[in-house]
Order: sequence, then structure tokens, then C-alpha cells
Amino acid sequence: MADKVYRVNMSNLSYKIEEVPAHWMGLGGRGLTSTVIAEEVDPECHPLGPNNKMVFAPGLLSGTTAANSGRNSLGTKSPLTGGIKESNVGGTMAGIMAKLGVKALIIEGIPEDDSTFYHIHITKDNVMIEAVPELVGKDNFFVLDAMEEKYNKKVAVMTIGRPGEMKMLISNISVRDPKGKLRSHGRGGVGAVMGSKKIKCITVDAENYKEVTYAAPEKFKEASKIFTKALQENPISGEGLPAFGTNVLVNIINEAGGLPSHNFRSGSSENAEAICGETMAENIKERHGSTTHGCHAGCVIQCSQTYNDKDGNYLTSGFEYEMIWAFGANFGISDLDQIAKIDALMYDLGVDAIETGVTFGVAVDAGLIEFGDGLRAFEILEKEVANGTPLGRIIGGAAGNLGKLYGLVRVPVVKNQSIPAYEPRAIKGQGITYVTTPMGADHTAGYAVATNILNSGGHIDPLQKEGQVELSRNLQIASAAVDSTGMCIFVAFPALDDPKCLPALIDMINARFGINLTADDVTNLGANILKTEHEFNIKAGLTSATDRVPEFMKYETLPPTNAIWDFTNEEIDEFWNF
Amino acid sequence: MADKVYRVNMSNLSYKIEEVPAHWMGLGGRGLTSTVIAEEVDPECHPLGPNNKMVFAPGLLSGTTAANSGRNSLGTKSPLTGGIKESNVGGTMAGIMAKLGVKALIIEGIPEDDSTFYHIHITKDNVMIEAVPELVGKDNFFVLDAMEEKYNKKVAVMTIGRPGEMKMLISNISVRDPKGKLRSHGRGGVGAVMGSKKIKCITVDAENYKEVTYAAPEKFKEASKIFTKALQENPISGEGLPAFGTNVLVNIINEAGGLPSHNFRSGSSENAEAICGETMAENIKERHGSTTHGCHAGCVIQCSQTYNDKDGNYLTSGFEYEMIWAFGANFGISDLDQIAKIDALMYDLGVDAIETGVTFGVAVDAGLIEFGDGLRAFEILEKEVANGTPLGRIIGGAAGNLGKLYGLVRVPVVKNQSIPAYEPRAIKGQGITYVTTPMGADHTAGYAVATNILNSGGHIDPLQKEGQVELSRNLQIASAAVDSTGMCIFVAFPALDDPKCLPALIDMINARFGINLTADDVTNLGANILKTEHEFNIKAGLTSATDRVPEFMKYETLPPTNAIWDFTNEEIDEFWNF
Repeated sequence: MADKVYRVNMSNLSYKIEEVPAHWMGLGGRGLTSTVIAEEVDPECHPLGPNNKMVFAPGLLSGTTAANSGRNSLGTKSPLTGGIKESNVGGTMAGIMAKLGVKALIIEGIPEDDSTFYHIHITKDNVMIEAVPELVGKDNFFVLDAMEEKYNKKVAVMTIGRPGEMKMLISNISVRDPKGKLRSHGRGGVGAVMGSKKIKCITVDAENYKEVTYAAPEKFKEASKIFTKALQENPISGEGLPAFGTNVLVNIINEAGGLPSHNFRSGSSENAEAICGETMAENIKERHGSTTHGCHAGCVIQCSQTYNDKDGNYLTSGFEYEMIWAFGANFGISDLDQIAKIDALMYDLGVDAIETGVTFGVAVDAGLIEFGDGLRAFEILEKEVANGTPLGRIIGGAAGNLGKLYGLVRVPVVKNQSIPAYEPRAIKGQGITYVTTPMGADHTAGYAVATNILNSGGHIDPLQKEGQVELSRNLQIASAAVDSTGMCIFVAFPALDDPKCLPALIDMINARFGINLTADDVTNLGANILKTEHEFNIKAGLTSATDRVPEFMKYETLPPTNAIWDFTNEEIDEFWNF
Repeated sequence: MADKVYRVNMSNLSYKIEEVPAHWMGLGGRGLTSTVIAEEVDPECHPLGPNNKMVFAPGLLSGTTAANSGRNSLGTKSPLTGGIKESNVGGTMAGIMAKLGVKALIIEGIPEDDSTFYHIHITKDNVMIEAVPELVGKDNFFVLDAMEEKYNKKVAVMTIGRPGEMKMLISNISVRDPKGKLRSHGRGGVGAVMGSKKIKCITVDAENYKEVTYAAPEKFKEASKIFTKALQENPISGEGLPAFGTNVLVNIINEAGGLPSHNFRSGSSENAEAICGETMAENIKERHGSTTHGCHAGCVIQCSQTYNDKDGNYLTSGFEYEMIWAFGANFGISDLDQIAKIDALMYDLGVDAIETGVTFGVAVDAGLIEFGDGLRAFEILEKEVANGTPLGRIIGGAAGNLGKLYGLVRVPVVKNQSIPAYEPRAIKGQGITYVTTPMGADHTAGYAVATNILNSGGHIDPLQKEGQVELSRNLQIASAAVDSTGMCIFVAFPALDDPKCLPALIDMINARFGINLTADDVTNLGANILKTEHEFNIKAGLTSATDRVPEFMKYETLPPTNAIWDFTNEEIDEFWNF
């Protein structure tokens, strides 16, 4: 039985279930969402107006038994960057959508009556849209509880908190994970798009799902084994990440002088020891938490965790490097437990860790708060952001807009999106990814840290310009392809170093669909996705003038390496010559 | 004795007095400021960073006895639009600079020590730069008083208030007029640029000035007479404007259905009668104010006024149509006296009437204030904006950013600059000017209202698309040239209808400098200025995707005409084919 496109129109609360157009057949995840957005959304439309759309699509391998294939992609025009956005996430949604035969869920329009919010419930061949006034003004965990009460644990849930309802640009869309915790479609203010469409939550009912079928089950099984083995034998995905989580990076990046601190004034932090992955793992052990936790079924890396307080009470999970960097190094909180409390609150509110953390860093320069004042940051999030007070709106409007309101020059954004936890001056390959990816500053778009710092896929000196543009381009093309499979980003490490990994991934796709993709086909797929996204952005007005770091990085050196951003415009613009 | 370029470097508080480069010789006003910005400023620089510059230049005829020639141009990269900005103003600065032989004043850099603000004092062949801690945190009239005490009435003064110090995007640069009142370099957040350079005020000492010389004094006198007569005999510049001021437009534009009201929900206002020029003139007469007042020496139109309260006490002057429209029709205050009080406060603070008024309209949709609540608007300006509270920063960040913070779609801006008092849907020629001018929505860039509504220069139906692009292009080219002469915009009316007017203007330029400009030369000058500005914007990232009205105007009809914005992108983009 063929997959279908589920299309919901919020303007009149109707839906249609459509055949999959032939040219969408071979696409999944990011490849599909970016194609749909490019085909159906006017690049000049207002991202929060009736002509923007949201497209959710599981990856090509989602729903299968392939390890780490549980990522779901969201495509839309971002209200933060003004360009195209793809944001993918773990959790239970991708697998259940795939098994239910939902190739894509496309949401259009805006209700005329904007006095309430709606819940979209998807079952086999049916969509129910109903007002949920009782959920309005509630945050994510309340919604999860309400959905669990209404249905059962096998219902996949996506939800927005109050910041999303208020269309704040730091808001994300949260997705329930297998243990009832949350993961996020982060970056780009995607929660605001869901808020603009007056959608509080989306559930997909797993009751009538079927296991996905395989054109060549044995071949799939065989390739899957090789792939899993590659993941498990890689020192990063098989050892570092399971032991310390993503936060293993704090010490590594700090030592490289690439850990932005004090709102990007330095590349190393005095808090590194206090907030690093090793300290975190120790705390977890002492406090009877768990260092391993998968964000989706089938994950063999288990880089997430359960983090408890000193008394052994649960504090948070999905406690990632980017969050700990943003609030620990960049905003300066030296107490990991305090960061964990903020993390839990942010999961409940549904706000992006990077965007919010960088915003607090800029807020220091605006005189709104002091570096390291975690109690006040918590209070601002809980009281001001959650209630949409003027101060809350300023924080909720994200770093770029805060900078504009306060006339600041030190505003670490690219295409108005906050720069993640790797300093572009000191890790130049990653900088090239930030400025060229159509997503705005995004570390996952082409993780050059791998080759600049972790010596995965060889080594290119992070402080030298040579080779970085090509490195970033190759990684971005590969990432666009991988983001179409439903695979998590950490597949990159074995893919870069184990010659068996990528062929096994391609074999799985071929065995699943009975096709004959080659490595070149996959590269072409990735390149085409990038070009589609880039073309959308150009039409939306994001020209090469937006492929730039914030100007201060061009004239201010970064201690301790004293690195500066020294790429010429021509060197950067060379990226798109492929 | 030849004119000089005065160049101030705020980075080290130094100055140089330079010869005028040959290719700047024939330029003045906008022609000169836009040329300097295009030549010397990186289009990608941060507008509030050390690499932006401010260029002040009097017009070619400034300082002469020509009527209405007292406009001074400011050029910079705008922190509001991100593009090039030229903003010209009356007051005493243009004449005194011209007579002192200051062809241009170029200000570069930013002081390393940003703990105070500076006063720049210019005399013949000398520039003094000194810290003025006693003026920090003060507003414009305080600065005027301080300068009057320090020098004498003949010192020209430019100043910023607290919003400019705080680099707010609604801030402007205020200029003393001959009667000690204020005029403004408005739009584009230019006060923020002065604030970023830590300049509180600039004075130019008239003591050692000389009258400008004429290559052909008799020819000049003769042409000047013809020109003045043309201004005085035109029904708009000779009758309507002197009698009722710019506010004569309220009834005219309201009747055409082009007076934006309730944050651009309608093209007519229930307050028109209460706030119109006729009512204002009656009040002035009854209260012993004055309907005539020139913003600069030599003005024969005298469209400004002195507006008193019911008890005959001075309230404000320079009380213009755009201000009265913004707070009366668009924000909905029906009491002209209340608008006048807000006007006086805004002159003191130094904030732009259009940008601030439109922001209050959008603030209603954000739930921050109610339509027509003038008392609260006054309070927000006086308490919140002036003190930079979070709410004040939100208002001070201007309409476009407020819209982003609150997730609003009804945000009437082009290139992030607020749309003035003529609805683009109902006065389509003016709409074409808004979207195509490199300045962001600016009514003065090509005043198509003249031909769409006032039947000046013929008539083109305001509701029809045909002919509007060509009309706007011709007007924008002419305006760019006129903005280079130091002439006020109202020269446009006789220029469009009296065949003797433009030749007389050109004769004056020729007689002043001993050159032989033709009408074609002047048209070429205007066209070249536009192209220079457009090219700067393209490099700055403002592509044709920003030559657009806000999207809601494309799907929402405007009562009472039920007009819609129906230009295709191709029709708009045709503008630049010249």
C-alpha cells in the first residue's frame, strides 16, 4: 500500500489525502521538505502569514530497523532568517509517520478565527482538527500529559509552549521521545510558524500502523548490520558520545580555543572544567542518573542521558553540549545544575537552546542581565518570556533583533540566526558552513569540526583558510543527503572514516525500495537539495551579502588563538560554484 | 577661496581639512553624500560599527539668495534599512556650512572610550572635538540652550536626544531652525549612527563666514526672481501650503481614500475633520499662533507654523501633515492639541514622526496600547522610550522590529522603514516610489501624490497601475537632482506645472558656478545618483525581493476604494530599466 501525502488547510480546517507525485517518490526528510517548500511557497511571502506552509516528512529509512534512522524533517520559510528552513529531530514521530504511510504532512493557511488553538490528530486515512481551548496558555509537558491521558503512550506528539503560541523567534516545536521526554525541531523560530497557524499540537496515532516493507529484506538486514557495526566501532559514535554525551565536546573545543565565551569575546572559558562532559558524567554516576538514553527507537549511540540533582531527583535529559556551552561558557554560568534547571524549563516552554542562550549573551551587552546570573536568566524565562512581557518579548525576539533594539554591533548571528558553539574565527571550516548554509548559522549543516578538530575524515588546520571551503561544501552536500535518510548527524563520523559505512547506508535505501542508487546519485541528491534551498533564499532576498560573519569578527581578534575572520568575499562566494 | 572637505575621525578624535576631489566638485547635497558613501563605505559594514560614516553636505545652491535653497543632506548607511540613506533638512546648517566653505563634513570611526559623548565645533579651518559629559542624557532643547549660552544665535546646531544616544532606530538628528525651533534629518534611524559615533551635537560657527560668490551675479539675480515668482504663483506652494501648512493634505488624501488609518486597515479616517489643516488653521487663528513660519532663511513658502494651546501658550511648531496623520488617522488620536503635545515631546527627544507614529499603530496590534490613547502614547515616549526601558526599546526599535518581536503580519514597512501617509494600494504611483526608492518607504523620494491626486504635472488615476512606474521613475530622478541643489521638495509643484521654473533653477546653478548645465545634464545627474544608491543597496543585500509592499497589501482590500496592491514583481522591477 503506497504512502500518501496528508494535506491540512487551516484556513477552513479541512484536509485531503493525496497520492504522492511521481517526482517526490524518491525523496524523504530534508530532500522532500525543501522540494515541497521550493515548489509551493512564495519565497517572498511573510513567514507568519497565510501563504507559508509547514511540511513534516520522515526520512527515507525512517520506520525501518536501520540504526539511528528516526529523524523527522520539518520544512518551512523561517521567520527568523527569512529563508528556507529544514530542521530535523528525533523522537517517535518519524517512525510512526513512516509506518502509517505518511510520506509528508503539509500544513497550509491560517484560521480566520484566531481566538483559539487547534489539535491535529492523524490516524490511518483520517485527520481530525479540533479546537483545544483547554490547552491554550499551557506548556509542553502539560500537553504531553493531556495527550497521554487522551490516547496512549504510542501516540506521537508534537507541541508548542507559550512562546510558540506568541510566535516568538526563539520558539521551537517539541517532539515526544520514547521515554516521554522531549526533543526539538529547533532553530529558525519554527515554533512561531506553528503558532501562526494556531496549531497547539499534532498527534499521530500508531494504532493502525504496519511495519514498513522491504523490497529486499535480507539485503537490508545484511547492510544494516554492517552499518550498525560501523557506528559502534567508531571511537566518537561508539565510545565518546555514549560515555559523555555531546557534552564531551566542551573540553575539546575549549582546548582548541574555539569555545565562544562571554558573548564571543574569547574562544576559551574559565568554566570549562565545571561544565564539561567528564564532570557531567561524574555527577550522573554519583547521583544515579543515566549516561545513556536514545532520542528515538533504534538509536545505538544513546548520547542523551538522565541528569539528576544532588539529591538524586530528576532534573533534565537531552542535556546537550550546545545548551551547556550557551549558558555555561557563553553566558557564563559555572554551575551545571543551574544550567540543567534552565534546560528543563526551556524544554517545557519550547525554546531553542542555541538561540536563547546566545540571546542571553547579547542581553548582557544590552545591560539587561549580568554574565553568569543563572537565577535571573531562569526568572526571565519563567516570568517574562513565558508571559510575553516587554522584556520577555525582547528575549523571545532572539539575538539579532535584540541587537537591533539596543544598537549593538557584537551580535553573533548569520542570516539573523545565532551562531552555535564553535567559533568561526578559530574553527574556520565551521565558519564557512555558518555563512554559506541556506539555514543561517547552523552547526549541523556541514560539521567541519569533524575534520578541523576531531580528525575525522582527515585533518585540516582549523586556523588556516586553505581547504575549508571545499571541506564545508563536501560536508554540506553529504549532510543534505543524510538529512534525507532519517539518519542522525553522528552517522557522519563513521561515514567519514569507515569505508564500509556509506555503502551500507546506500545499500539499505536500495534494499528498502528496490532501487539502485549509487554513491554518485546520493552526492547529486545532496547537491541538488542545497541548490534548491539556495535558489529559494536568493528569491527571498538572501543574497551573498548575507553569506557573511558579523562584521566585528573581521576586525577583532579572538583570544587565545588571536584568530580573525580573514576570508575575502570572493573566497566565500566560491562555495556556490558546483 | 575654494570649498574644503572637513573630515573628522572619531576613533582618535582627530580631523583633517582636505581639498575637494575633482569629481566631487560639481556635486552637492544628495549627489555628494551618496557619492561619498558609495565610494568610502563598505556596503556590508555594520551601520553602527566603526566602518560606517556620516556625510553632511549643503546643496549646490545653499548659502545663496535663491529661495528655498536651505536644505542640508546627510548620507550614511542606515541602521533601519541596511541600505544607503540620504536625509535632507531645513534649518540654519546648510546656509552656514556653505558660507563657511564646508563642501562636506565627513565623520568616520567610533571612539575607543565610549564612556562619554562629544561635541564637534567647526569654525573656519578648524575643528574642535571635546567631551560633553554635562550634555549626556539630555534632550534636544537642553542642548540648544547650552549651545546658545556657549556661543550665540548664529551658531548652527545639530543634536541628538536620549533615543539617539541609545541608538534607537526611531531616532533622528535635529537641526536648529532660524527661530530656535527644530527640524529633523528624519527616517532611517540616522540619530543612532550619530549616537554610535558618540557625538552629542555638532555646531558650525557663523562668525567668520563670507557670503557665497557668484560667477554671474546679474544672471543669478534674474533667474532667482523668475524662480521665486514660480514658487509664489503656484496654487500649492503659493497658496495651499502657506495657508494651511502641509496638513492641508488630510482632507484631500482622506477623500481619495488614501489616508492610512487604524494601522493601515482603511484609507479614510473618522478623525479627518478634527485633525485637518483647516481645523488647525482655525485653531491657530483663534489662539493667536502663526500659520506661517519658514524652516530656513530664504523660504518663501513658509509652510510651518506656531501652534498654541487653548490658552494661547506655545505648544509646537513644525507640526506637519505626516505627524498629524500618523498619530491622528493611523493611531487614532482625535484631539489635535494632544497630537501637538506629543509632537513637541518628540522634537525634544529627537524621534522621527513617521517611524514613531507607525510604530504606535503596530503596537496596538501587539496589544501594547489602544487606538487613540494619546495620553498613554505620550507617557510611553516620556517615561519608557526616553529612559530606554524594555517597552521603550521595543517602541524605539521601530515598527518592523516590533512586528518581528510580536509575530505580526500587518507591519506597514518597506525595507524595514515605515510607510508614510499615503496608502500604496489607493495611491499606486506613490506605492511604486515606496518600493523602488533605495531609501525604504519614503514619500519625498518621488512624490507621485502630485500627479495621482493633486493634478500637478498632469493626472494619472491613483487606482490604476498604468503609467505609475514611469511617473515614479521620472519623479525620483528629478527629486534626486533637486535634493542635490539644496532646494525643498515643494519646488516640485511649480517645477511640474510652470515651464519657467526648472530652467530658472538650472540658470541659478550655472550663474553660481559659471558652468553650462542643460536640462539633460540635470536629468543625468538625478539618474546617476539613483543608480549609485541602488548599486550600493544591491551590494548591501537589498535586492529586488525588498522592492515590495508588505504582503498583506497583496491579499487584503483597502476600504473605501477596495483597492489592492496588484503590481506583479516584473512590473515593479521594470523600474530599474533605465
